[in-house]
Formats: sequence, structure tokens, C-alpha cells
Amino acid sequence: MDMRIETDSFGEIEVAADRYWGAQTERSLHNFDIGRDTFVWGRAMVRALGILKKAAAQANGELGELPADVADLIVQAADEVIAGNLDDHFPLVVFQTGSGTQSNMNSNEVISNRAIELAGGEMGSKKPVHPNDHVNRGQSSNDTFPTAMHIAIVNELNERLYPAIARLREVLAAKAEEYDDVVMVGRTHLQDATPVRLGQVFGGWVAQLDFALDGIRFADERARDLAIGGTAVGTGLNAHPDFGKLAAEKISAETGLEFRQADNLFAALSAHDSLVEVSGSLRVLADALMKLANDVRWYASGPRNGIGELTIPENEPGSSIMPGKVNPTQSEALTMVVARVLGNDAAVGFAGSQGNFQLNVFKPVMAHAVLESIRLLADGARSFTEHCAVGIEPNTQRIEANLQSNLMLVTALNRHIGYDLAAKIAKQAHKEGTSLKESALANGVSSEDFDRWVVPSEMTGR
Amino acid sequence: MDMRIETDSFGEIEVAADRYWGAQTERSLHNFDIGRDTFVWGRAMVRALGILKKAAAQANGELGELPADVADLIVQAADEVIAGNLDDHFPLVVFQTGSGTQSNMNSNEVISNRAIELAGGEMGSKKPVHPNDHVNRGQSSNDTFPTAMHIAIVNELNERLYPAIARLREVLAAKAEEYDDVVMVGRTHLQDATPVRLGQVFGGWVAQLDFALDGIRFADERARDLAIGGTAVGTGLNAHPDFGKLAAEKISAETGLEFRQADNLFAALSAHDSLVEVSGSLRVLADALMKLANDVRWYASGPRNGIGELTIPENEPGSSIMPGKVNPTQSEALTMVVARVLGNDAAVGFAGSQGNFQLNVFKPVMAHAVLESIRLLADGARSFTEHCAVGIEPNTQRIEANLQSNLMLVTALNRHIGYDLAAKIAKQAHKEGTSLKESALANGVSSEDFDRWVVPSEMTGR
Amino acid sequence: MDMRIETDSFGEIEVAADRYWGAQTERSLHNFDIGRDTFVWGRAMVRALGILKKAAAQANGELGELPADVADLIVQAADEVIAGNLDDHFPLVVFQTGSGTQSNMNSNEVISNRAIELAGGEMGSKKPVHPNDHVNRGQSSNDTFPTAMHIAIVNELNERLYPAIARLREVLAAKAEEYDDVVMVGRTHLQDATPVRLGQVFGGWVAQLDFALDGIRFADERARDLAIGGTAVGTGLNAHPDFGKLAAEKISAETGLEFRQADNLFAALSAHDSLVEVSGSLRVLADALMKLANDVRWYASGPRNGIGELTIPENEPGSSIMPGKVNPTQSEALTMVVARVLGNDAAVGFAGSQGNFQLNVFKPVMAHAVLESIRLLADGARSFTEHCAVGIEPNTQRIEANLQSNLMLVTALNRHIGYDLAAKIAKQAHKEGTSLKESALANGVSSEDFDRWVVPSEMTGR
Amino acid sequence: MDMRIETDSFGEIEVAADRYWGAQTERSLHNFDIGRDTFVWGRAMVRALGILKKAAAQANGELGELPADVADLIVQAADEVIAGNLDDHFPLVVFQTGSGTQSNMNSNEVISNRAIELAGGEMGSKKPVHPNDHVNRGQSSNDTFPTAMHIAIVNELNERLYPAIARLREVLAAKAEEYDDVVMVGRTHLQDATPVRLGQVFGGWVAQLDFALDGIRFADERARDLAIGGTAVGTGLNAHPDFGKLAAEKISAETGLEFRQADNLFAALSAHDSLVEVSGSLRVLADALMKLANDVRWYASGPRNGIGELTIPENEPGSSIMPGKVNPTQSEALTMVVARVLGNDAAVGFAGSQGNFQLNVFKPVMAHAVLESIRLLADGARSFTEHCAVGIEPNTQRIEANLQSNLMLVTALNRHIGYDLAAKIAKQAHKEGTSLKESALANGVSSEDFDRWVVPSEMTGR
Repeated sequence: MDMRIETDSFGEIEVAADRYWGAQTERSLHNFDIGRDTFVWGRAMVRALGILKKAAAQANGELGELPADVADLIVQAADEVIAGNLDDHFPLVVFQTGSGTQSNMNSNEVISNRAIELAGGEMGSKKPVHPNDHVNRGQSSNDTFPTAMHIAIVNELNERLYPAIARLREVLAAKAEEYDDVVMVGRTHLQDATPVRLGQVFGGWVAQLDFALDGIRFADERARDLAIGGTAVGTGLNAHPDFGKLAAEKISAETGLEFRQADNLFAALSAHDSLVEVSGSLRVLADALMKLANDVRWYASGPRNGIGELTIPENEPGSSIMPGKVNPTQSEALTMVVARVLGNDAAVGFAGSQGNFQLNVFKPVMAHAVLESIRLLADGARSFTEHCAVGIEPNTQRIEANLQSNLMLVTALNRHIGYDLAAKIAKQAHKEGTSLKESALANGVSSEDFDRWVVPSEMTGR
Repeated sequence: MDMRIETDSFGEIEVAADRYWGAQTERSLHNFDIGRDTFVWGRAMVRALGILKKAAAQANGELGELPADVADLIVQAADEVIAGNLDDHFPLVVFQTGSGTQSNMNSNEVISNRAIELAGGEMGSKKPVHPNDHVNRGQSSNDTFPTAMHIAIVNELNERLYPAIARLREVLAAKAEEYDDVVMVGRTHLQDATPVRLGQVFGGWVAQLDFALDGIRFADERARDLAIGGTAVGTGLNAHPDFGKLAAEKISAETGLEFRQADNLFAALSAHDSLVEVSGSLRVLADALMKLANDVRWYASGPRNGIGELTIPENEPGSSIMPGKVNPTQSEALTMVVARVLGNDAAVGFAGSQGNFQLNVFKPVMAHAVLESIRLLADGARSFTEHCAVGIEPNTQRIEANLQSNLMLVTALNRHIGYDLAAKIAKQAHKEGTSLKESALANGVSSEDFDRWVVPSEMTGR
Repeated sequence: MDMRIETDSFGEIEVAADRYWGAQTERSLHNFDIGRDTFVWGRAMVRALGILKKAAAQANGELGELPADVADLIVQAADEVIAGNLDDHFPLVVFQTGSGTQSNMNSNEVISNRAIELAGGEMGSKKPVHPNDHVNRGQSSNDTFPTAMHIAIVNELNERLYPAIARLREVLAAKAEEYDDVVMVGRTHLQDATPVRLGQVFGGWVAQLDFALDGIRFADERARDLAIGGTAVGTGLNAHPDFGKLAAEKISAETGLEFRQADNLFAALSAHDSLVEVSGSLRVLADALMKLANDVRWYASGPRNGIGELTIPENEPGSSIMPGKVNPTQSEALTMVVARVLGNDAAVGFAGSQGNFQLNVFKPVMAHAVLESIRLLADGARSFTEHCAVGIEPNTQRIEANLQSNLMLVTALNRHIGYDLAAKIAKQAHKEGTSLKESALANGVSSEDFDRWVVPSEMTGR
Repeated sequence: MDMRIETDSFGEIEVAADRYWGAQTERSLHNFDIGRDTFVWGRAMVRALGILKKAAAQANGELGELPADVADLIVQAADEVIAGNLDDHFPLVVFQTGSGTQSNMNSNEVISNRAIELAGGEMGSKKPVHPNDHVNRGQSSNDTFPTAMHIAIVNELNERLYPAIARLREVLAAKAEEYDDVVMVGRTHLQDATPVRLGQVFGGWVAQLDFALDGIRFADERARDLAIGGTAVGTGLNAHPDFGKLAAEKISAETGLEFRQADNLFAALSAHDSLVEVSGSLRVLADALMKLANDVRWYASGPRNGIGELTIPENEPGSSIMPGKVNPTQSEALTMVVARVLGNDAAVGFAGSQGNFQLNVFKPVMAHAVLESIRLLADGARSFTEHCAVGIEPNTQRIEANLQSNLMLVTALNRHIGYDLAAKIAKQAHKEGTSLKESALANGVSSEDFDRWVVPSEMTGR
């Protein structure tokens, strides 16, 4: 393999000639061989680093901190990072320095070398574009990496999660309308209860999604505060006083999402409470999806010996041994996503508590967990929507039969004959296996009164 | 012991004559002997049940659902519950029916019997005030218990948590101002870094508290949506159509906090995402307090062989074996509170995912965990404030000595001589045990330049 | 209130004259007003402190480290602590110094003052029994408090948890035998599957309990290693070299449970991995109980519109609004216990990771959480056993009807006609709403073959 | 792209001609596009599926359930799966059917088609080797997938985790011996305490690793119980009565690790308490590694303004802005691994509680989380060992200076002058900034006594 020499303050090290990265990336590859198969940073984070470095060069250029030609070269190379052309040159894993220094340097090195190449220079020479003095100008990993974290997370929320949940919501809301006149048994404590309409059931799920999304948007809005400009410890040492504010504006322009420099940069480096909040808001969504997926699979349980009031699409053979079996596999995949998201949230909550002095050094693992949760929730919701939710239908025959036999229709009698007598009627019907009406008549309710008082469709409210 | 007979739909049961509770409370005492020592509902929840029942009676009275005299009697008895006079008559524990039915019935029974007593009737007779038909009029445990949960939690946030955190914030903010000119070693990765001012350190903690509080207030605001009016399954069966809205107004009037009936009552019964959100927001505060308490104890570590840059009040002998030892005990108590709050949050996140159909039956354990977290965070913060934070002082001698020996002042040279040469100077000083200046001079920096460039107090930003 | 003066190295402080505690306990009361209602140490921990102090006095007496009369006085006072006579003199809460110093001193002070009283001396005089020099002889909070934690936990496991789980197991195992010939629909993915016997269902639950208990016993066995003899940092400074070993023997004699001094006392003070392990083993039990409680309530769901194959005892009215409703309340209480135990486990796992150098200062919160989990699991299991499990019965009519309609009996055909044709038969029956046999005949299976091949009771294995 | 037709009970579907997988794998690819980048099953699980299918074929062959030539073909193809030659033909992700049905079918299909190819048949024809009737003979996903999970996990523990931890232990144990005579300040509550030897510090870490490993081995041993032979619901329907036992023997032979058929197959399908236990045991290790990594980085903090008593290898430049900074990056990577492992454990604990009736459908997410934790712990420990632990050295100059100034040496005086006077001496020295000896002399201790009583090296025990 063709190699070239790269250097850093530790000295020289060989790097494959066709790689843009430099000495510190190479050292990290040697030093952190942890979870290599699955924990290499992916698109979202690499893109965010590119956006950050582009914005920093633009800001430094305008502020006179970088020569215009150097700034332009950096922007050009950063654009390639943003576009995804250089993803193969970001080989580092999550488990590295806790400030993300090595991934920050990875971006500095790749952009520097690519810019050098564009300028016709020699890779590794650090001329005319130096990874630290130019690409990292006015920056420290301690402020750039959390900035990139926030960019990536906010981007993923907006580009990936919101559309997926909006689509699920749209499908469920349409079902709520379509089936608003289907009256069915309500169930509390898993026991038969007073009736509801299927539209109300769907509507409850929609309300949960709306609530969860509003919470995520609140956390998203607060995650727009960026650490940029804080440099090493939050004081902004070595950065132009206007750098952070201007860089944030450039980031906003690049992403189309409004970011700002955080008011307090010390907190922005030493704590990641904002990510804990984002993760917590994702957990609310996860819990809502758990409820939805569970309800769907229980309503669809059977086909003959369960509840069986909803039917769901059959997408694949259900069993390798039981012929003809169909399982609620999309619900299962989604609830497994929930389990993983709850786990990620626990990791984030733990890591978020472990900052010391001017830095929290659990940045990469927090960013990774939040990004993974977003990805899984979006993918899981989309899969559930397209392969299950769109095809949910009521089994009206079963729904009607169940509704008729439901003893809890007795509740309608409370207002007319009092709780105590109503209870006696229901218990007697249950014990003797009779219908509610038979029992009511045996307890002195007239047939006319019963039929006028007990009308399931009138028991479901507005 | 003097006993009387109480009845419910299960029949008769003996209750101590001097207890206001009735048959269902008595049954619950027999059936749920779980964690009796420490899991009996306390003031916050009992008061909330009283508020709820009072408001319900007022609303039903106005709507003509209850005779005025019955409503008045209920209000009178409920006022005693609110005031705390009847706390001994609420003996039930958290681990009961998952809808809180038995605690709802406990309040119905106590208020009914006390109202009967006030009316000169016979306890247990259910006349003239029936626990179900009157006190529970237009209600179900499924909507009243979550309503009471929200009232209790919102009350505790406002009356207990906010003042405690506001006081801690005030103390820290005052210190931030007082010590804003104390320049000290910054630390990242636990390693010496560029300088910060002590005021900035305090300011970072303040910013974390502000962020956490804003998140809690957001969750608090959303927890003002009440399930009341949903009755058994969310449809509002047996309640007057305006009951929920009006009851929420009465609750607002009683508490001075603005509550509303929830838009979607199906979600309000079958999910408690709002409590998951509140708990998640408390976790952010917990993480912030962990950072604060850890920083304080590490800054105060020593007294001679640690960092020792802050001194904290000595409140008690530190060791039963090491004479004269003083320990950061308030930090320890507070971080243990954090551990407990993280645990409670995990319980809430789990329970919140487990709703089925029209009900989530983990209501009591969720409410209890959130209330416990609020209580512990408030108590822990107040204890930390009064017994530690107020007395934090800089050890200026130590701070100054550390600052002078700090090699990372070298960072100020970057802009003048470049990162690579600066790195060489720092490494050489470290290796040879010399001062930074000595090493700089040995590497070609003039003494005048060094003194002009390396001024710690000018390295700490605005 | 009558007061007396107590002293410690911080000086004098007033204590109520009728309290045995001394200066440090009094200071802790002032300094740690956190969660006072519910977080005062209870019987288990106070008893363990008494056992520890008695054993220490015995060991020190035998080793000549204490005069015989002083040792005897301590033993006498400690016996009263063990018996529970002095519980009111242990007023401190969990949230205190992270080493439990103040609770250790509480026991030193109470025993010293009670011993002084027994000797006819003056309380507070520290003569003839000094809380530090005598009661705490050769000890530090750092080794005594974790020792007491382990004693309390091991005791509670053996005296409280094992009997409760053994009783539940016994009840379930008897049901397994009793109902071993009840053939019913199996269910996987919540969907109808090949048949099982009810005895197998019960047997599966029993197997889970056995597995969980074996894991807890393993953790229990390892928790018998005590920190005693390590004193302040693990070196045993100021303790007689044989003290720890001998004290452990005395503890074993007192409790009837075999304890040992830990091999490595540094780990025993600075880490509490053993408690993390105990908590993890309790989590396995919690998960098993969750499965059990969920299965029971789902099998009992209905009564008419659910699965309804099991009936459970009706212990109380189920609903404050729906007359005659009966709910699976014991399952609900038990699953709420599970939620709390999972939360406690998260707290313990977090706290267990936070040791530094020679000490982990999350001792009290860890001990409390583990003790609470044990208590709740034992109480919850006992409640579920006596109020639910003992009364579980099959609804044989429903079971049989369900079994007959179950399409997954088709699996028995695989071996005779192959998976693909069997699948076709099942799907056709499902689609056309016919019986499995009808569909089989329509697909070329003879009636005789079908009846010979598809025999539910022969499909359930040994 | 060249395509061929594959079929299942749902009908025909096109598959790329060069892929061995069949219809159900292809459907799963379409239906479950969730986390595709990082959640495709890797080597460990694919290999385990290969081992399982090989063993099943061998067992079925011996029992006369498969023709010898078919069994041989399956074994041959399965051997290629085991060897890793066919990894590209296992494209499915974790988030699929909760029983792992599709991954089970993936292995059936790949092995079937490869076997057909070896036999000169036509891929997709299912002749002479049918994926269900032959490769899956006597099996169901419900028993095979958990069997493969256990094989993979036990394999990874033995091949990956144990060697990594053993190596770390070996390095630490050697340091414990090497530095056993280095006396240093002990620290409790982060405060100076009585002295310890560095060997004891290392020894404490070693003891934690030993404890954790013993717990993992216990869980490993119990995870050797396999679900195989339970088929669809635990009854073993359609499997030869001896199949499970024999297959387990074949698996043992193939892996060199002793596996057994589980005693209770109902529990083995419907619960995965064994994985919850394994995960819990890994959490103990994680907590121990957290303590280790934290201790190391705090001991190495500084270099000048921290504790600075240990030095660690410098592996890379520490900061992109602060020249010459060296950070404890291996500690940081390892503690981030811990955060991730705690999160995975939370996911497993949650998922393990969610079984229903005869199946737990969170199998894949549980298996994945446990395998990921094992991988990360092994990788993280190995990285920490080779890039940090091997190079830890005492900074003897600093250690000695700290030791001399340590006021807690006063503890040695307790036995001679009592706790109260000793406390006075220490507090006075602290207040006046004098040495302990000066203060002791001023309080009546003779110089000779002081020197004889206060000898740090004699204060550290055996």
C-alpha cells in the first residue's frame, strides 16, 4: 500500500496515500479499536462536521481571521464533506476521546488535505491550509464537537423524524375519521368496560403523537443553542469575539434551520442537558408508540381465540412451523425499537450527569445514542405506518358481537337506578351467564326503560 | 375496638368506629399490605383528592347534578381533607389497583361519612351523602385519580420545587458576581486547561439551573391538562357534558394555578405521557445538580492533597475514625438524591409505556415516583443551599499558586507563534519541570512578548 | 422540653433529654432534612447496626481491645437495639453522608448512652462507654456501614423474600399439578398457536421463579463477604488484625447466617458491586413476576370480551362508576411493584459506578433501594399469592370452545402432508370461516386421517 | 440484475440470482427497513445460526428424521455459514419479527439453497433440501432463535470477553505487585485519609474484576440451557422426543462449550431471564470498569493542578487548541463504553419483562444488546489495557510530597491519645497551616512518641 508521512505534535506517522486524513486520525485508528463494525460515525455526524467547518471558515474569513483564499479552499473542501463525497475518509468510532477531539481533528485533517489538493499542494504539508491554524481557527474540539452534535441532531429531527411521525399521524387521523361510527367494547384493566368508538381509539393515539411531537419540538428549539465560540473552556480564548455568533448564522444559512450561539458557553461545554432533554422527549414518543403498537397487536390478537376486533395486513408467513400463522410483526419491530430507545435514553441520562469542571467528556456516546434513537424511531414509525397502520381495518362482525355481550353497558343504568342496584344486575348476569337485559328485567327494570336507557352508541360521548 | 358495619357491592365489612373510611378502603387495607411503612400516600396526594372532590361537588351543584345541600356538605367535608385534618383517614398504600380506584373510593368514603356526620346522619348509611352517587357523581377513578395526580404534582412543583431551586440559583448567582474577578485554572478532561474566572464557573451552574427550570415549567404547563370529565373510558359517560370543564375551573380557583380539561380524554386516561415528560424534565435538573455537587466536592477536595481551590462549610465531624476530617457531606446527600431521582425516572418511563386500550394501570406508582422526586430534589437542593452553597469560598492562595504553574497558559501563544511551536514549548516545560516562560524563552520567545501575550486575566473572555 | 448537652469534636449541642442519641446524630437532624417522611431508616437497618455493634464489642472484648465490663455493657445495649426497643432513637434519613457515617455514629451514640445509663452513669459524659473509643473501637463508618448494609440485606432476603417466593411457588406448582390435563390454546405473538396444557403454563411460571431464586441465592452468598476490619480505607488501621474475622464470626452466630470477612477490603469499601449484583438478581425476579402477573390478567381478561380462560378471585368492587366490574387488582399491584423495583435497580446501577479512590459514597441510597426492592417484592408476591394465585381456576368451558376453533392445530399435519399444503389448509379455513377439518377435507385429507392426526391432547408433549 | 423466483406460503417473489436467500428473507428486506446501516446481524449471530442448523441436521439424521444425504448436505452448507463464507447472505436487521423468525428462515433458506446448489439442484426449487421441512425439521423459530442467541452470547463471552478481561487483570495484578511498597495518601469522600499502598489500590481493582468475572461465569453457565426441542410453544410438537437433547450435544461438540437442553422449555421460549441475568452481570463489570477508569484519570489529573500521583501513556495530542495537552483518552473511551452498556442493560431489563403467554417477542433486541455489550466491554477493556494500563506509573515525587503533608496521619494517634485530642491536633494544624507534628507537639505529644506512632508505611496493614 502506498503511504505518505503525516505529522502532529507527537511526531510522524504513516497514512495510506489515498486517504485525506492526517496524523491524529491515524493515531485514533490505532488507539481506539472499539466496536469498529457498527460504531463508525455515519452520514449525519460527518455532514454536521462539514457544515460546521464551512461556517467557521466563512465566519473567520469575514472577520479577517483567515485569508480569503484559505477560507475559500476550506469552504470548497467542506462542501464535499457536506455532500457525502468524503465519507470514507471519516473512519473513526464513537468510543474515542470524550470531547470528540479526534473526530474534530479528522474533519480538520480531511478538509485541510483536500483543500491542499485543490490548491495543488502536497498532502500532509499543512500548506497552504493548516488543519489546526486554519481549519480549526478560533475553535476547540470542546466547542466544535458539541456544535456538530447539535447540528446533526436538529437536522435529523427535522429531516427524518418529523416527516415519519407526521405520516403516521396522518394515517391514524384518517382512520379516526373513517371509523368514527364504529361502536365497540371499551376496556379498562383489560376488562370489558363501557363502549367507545373506534374513531376515539384512533384519536387517542393521534393525541399521544401530537403531545410527544410538541415536546420534541420544544427540546429541538432549545438544542439550537450552539457551543461555538467557547473554544477550550467556554471563555472563547483565541476566537474572534464575534466568531461564535457569526458562525451560528452561517450554520443557519447552510441548514435552513435557525441556530444561535448559546448564551452561556460554560454550560454548553461542561453539560449536555439539552441532549438529555432531547432524549427525554424522544422517550415520550417511544412510550406513545409502545402503547400504539401494543394496542394494535392486542386488538388484532386471535384470529379466533383473542380479541380479534382489528385486522392488520399480512406481510409474510408468520411461523416456520405453524402453517398459515400471521403475526403482528410490525408491532413487534416497533416495540423492540422502543426498548432500544429506552436503553439509549438511560445511557444519555447517565452520561449527562458526568461532567466535571469545564467539560463533559461523554459527548460522543451521548450524540450517538440520540442520533440512533431518532433514526430508529423514524424508521420504525415509517415501517409500521406503511406495512401495518395503513391496512388496519375493523372486524365489524366481531366488534358487534362483543359489544352486544358486554355487561358493562350496565353503567348507563347508574343515573336511573343507582350504582348499587346496577351492580347487582351486572353481577347476576355474569354469574348466571344471562344477558344484561334479562338480568335487568329480573331486577325490576322494564323492557322499555332498558332499551331506552342502554344504547351503546349513545354511551360514547361527543 | 368499637366497630361499625360498612357496605359496598361485595357486602358488609367491619370498620373501626372512629374511622371515616368505608368498605372499599377497609378491603384495600386487607388486600394490599405492600410496603405499608413507607408507601402510604402523604399530604400532597390527599390534599389533591380533597381539592378534586370539592371542585366536583361545586361543579355538579352548579350544573344541577347534585342538590345544593348535598353539594355543600361535600364541599365542607372536602375542605377538611384539603386542610389536612383527615389525613389519618387515608391509610392506603401506593400498591393497589392500578387506576387508584381504592384511593378515589377512600376519598369518596371519608368525605361521604364526614358529610353524613356533619348532617347529623349515621356513618355507613350513605345517607344523605352517598360515596358513589354523590361524592363520585359524574366521575370514575379513571379520570379522577389522574386528575388528582396532576393537581398534586403541579402543586408540589410550584410550592416546593421552584422556591427551593430559585433560592439555590440566587445564592449561586450572587457568588458568581462576588467572585467574578477570581482567575483560576480551567480544567478539561480533568487536566489543566486555559484559565477561567470563578464567576464564570458559578455562572455555568446557574445557567444549567435556568435551563432545567425552563424545561420543568414547560412540562408543568402541559401537566395542567386534566382527565376530569372522561369518566370510565374517556367518553364522559354519566357526567354532565360541561362537568369536566367546570370542575377544572373550580380546581384552578382552589389552587390558584391554571388548570384545564384535557382536549383528548382518551389519551388522558390511557397514557400518562405528561408524567413521563415531567419526570424527564426533573432528570435534567438532577443531572445539573449532579454536575454542581460533583464540581463543588472536587474543587473542595483535599484539604492538602486534592484540588483544594474552594472551601465549603464544615457542618459535622467527618469521620468516626479519622479525627479532624471534614467531608463534603451535602454534595454526597445531593448526589444520592440524584441517584434516587434517576431511578424514579426509570420507573416512570417504564410504567408510562404499559397502557392498554382505554387505561394505563400504573397510575399510582407513576404519581408516587414523580412526587417523591420533586420532594427529594427540593429538600436536597435546599439542604445543599443552606448548609453548603451559602458558605462556598475561594481558597485564593491555592488558586493563585495553581494558576501560576499552569502550563496551558501556552494556548495564548497559538495566535502568535502557531500551534506546533506552542506545543513544543509546553511539552518541554512539562518534561523538564520548568515554568512555561522558561521554556518559551528557550524556544525563542522574548521575555517581553511572553509577558505581553500570556496574561491569565486576559484569557478569560468577556 | 428537657435538654442535655452532648459534645463532639465540633463542640457542644443540645439534645432532648429523653433521647439516647448524641451530638452527631443531632447535627445530622439539623443538616439533612431531606425526605424526612419516608426515608428514615427502618427496622432492618437499625437491627443490622445493632448486630454489628454487638459483634464488634464481643470481638474486641475477646481480643483484649476492650475491658470486659465495657464490652458487656455495649452488648447489653446493642441487644436492645437488635430487639427493636430503641428504634425511636434512630431518627436519621437515607440522604446524609455517603458513607453512612452519621447512622454509624447514631448507633455508637445510642449504644454508648444506653450503656452509660445501664452502668448508672451520666448520659453525654461518654463515661464509662465512649461512642468512638469504645463502641466504634477498631471501626470506621467506611467498614461498619457497608457491613451493616450487607447484614440487613442478607437478613431480609432470608427472612422476608425467600419465604414469600417459596409460598408463591408452592401455590403455582400445586396448580400445575392440579390442572395438568387441561388442554388449551397456546399463544405466540398474541396469536393462536399449537396447544399447551394449563399445567405447563403454571410450570413455566414456576421454572421462572426457580431460576430467579437461584440467581438471588448466588448473589446472597456473595453478599456474605463483609467489609468489617477494613476501617477507614481498607488497611485495617487501628483495628486488631484478627478483629474483622472474629467480628464476622460473631455476626454469623447472632444471625444464624454464615458471614465472612471479605478477602479484599479495599474493594469492599470503594465499590459495592455485590449490591449491584443483588439488585440485578432481584430484577430477574421482577421480570419473572411481570410475566406472571401479565399472563394472569390477560388470561382472566373479559369476562366476555377478552380471553377469559382463567378466573381469578374477586376481592373488591372494581370500579367506582361501572357496577359489577371486577379487575385484576393484584396483578396491577404486583406489576407496579415491578416498575418500582426496576427503578430502584437503575438507581443502584448508577450509584455503584460512582466510587472514587478508597470509597464509594453512595452507600445509603444503594442500601435503601435494595432493601426497598426486597420488601416490595416480598410483600407484593405474598399479596398476589394469597389474594389471587390461590384462587386461580380454569374456565373450562371457554378453554374447550377456544381450543376447538383453533386453526393452529394444523401444525400436526406438517409431518404428514408438508408445511406448504398445511399452510394452504389453515389459510383457507381462516379466509372462509370454516373449521380446520372442513378445510382439510376440501384439500384432500381424509376424515379418518384428520381425526387420527389432529388430537390436541397429543400435541402437548410429555 | 439477474433475478430468480422464490416462493413461500405467500406466493412468489423475485430474489437476486446470486443471493442464496429465499422468499421470506426477501420479504423481510422489504418490510423491515429499520436501522439498516448498523443493525444488520453480524458474525456472532450468523455463526450461531450455522452451528444450530448443523447440529439440528446431525441430530435429525441420527434420529432418522432426515435422510442421511439430506442431513449431509445441510451440514456441508451450514459449515460454510459457520466459517463466515456466506455472511453476505444474511442481510436482515435486528428490528424484525420479535421471535427472530425471519433470521431463522434466512438461515433455513440460505442453507437450503446452498445445499441444493451443492447437490446440483435448482435454487428456489426446495429440492432436494426444503428450508422448512428439512433445514428447519423439528424446529420452530421460537426455539431455534433463542438457542442461537445463547450460543452466540456464550461464545462471545468465552472467546472475546474473558480473554480481554483476563489480560487487563494480569496487567493490573502485575502492577499491584510491582508497586506494593509505594505508600501514598488514601482518599475517602475525595478528602485526604489514612495512607494506602499503591499495590493495594491496584489490588482493589483486581478484586473488582475477579468478582465481576465470577458473576458473569455464573450467568454464562446458566445460559448454556437451550430452548431447542421446544418448537412452537414449548411442547416439542413435531420434533423427535430426543431431538433437543441430542442437538444440544452436537452444539457442545461443535463449540467446545458444554450446552444442554433446558429443563423447562416453556420458560425458555416465553422468558429470557437468563439474558437479563447475563446483562446484569455485565453491568457489574461495567460498574467496576467505571471505577477503575475514573480512579486512573483522577490519579493522573493535572499534570500540575490536579492529583497527579499516577502518570499514564501519552498516545496522541490532547487538544486541538491547547498545545501540549495530554488527556486520559482511554479512560474516557472506557467510561463511554460503560454508559452504553448501562443503556443496553436497561433495554434488556425492559424487554425481558414483556413476554406474553408462550412467547417473549423481544428476542432480537435483547440478543443484540447483550452481544453489543460484550463486544464493547471486551474491545474497551483491551484498548484500555494496551494503550493505558500497561503504562501506568507512579509519580513517586508527588506521591511522597503529598503523603508528608497529609493531616490524616493523625489517625495513628487515636489509640494512644484518644479520638478527641487527635481531632484537636488535626484541626489546629489545618487551621494554622502547620505540619501535623508541629501541632502534635503543641498539644503535648513528645517528638519521640510522634515519630514512633506516626509511620505511614506501618499504617497500611498487611
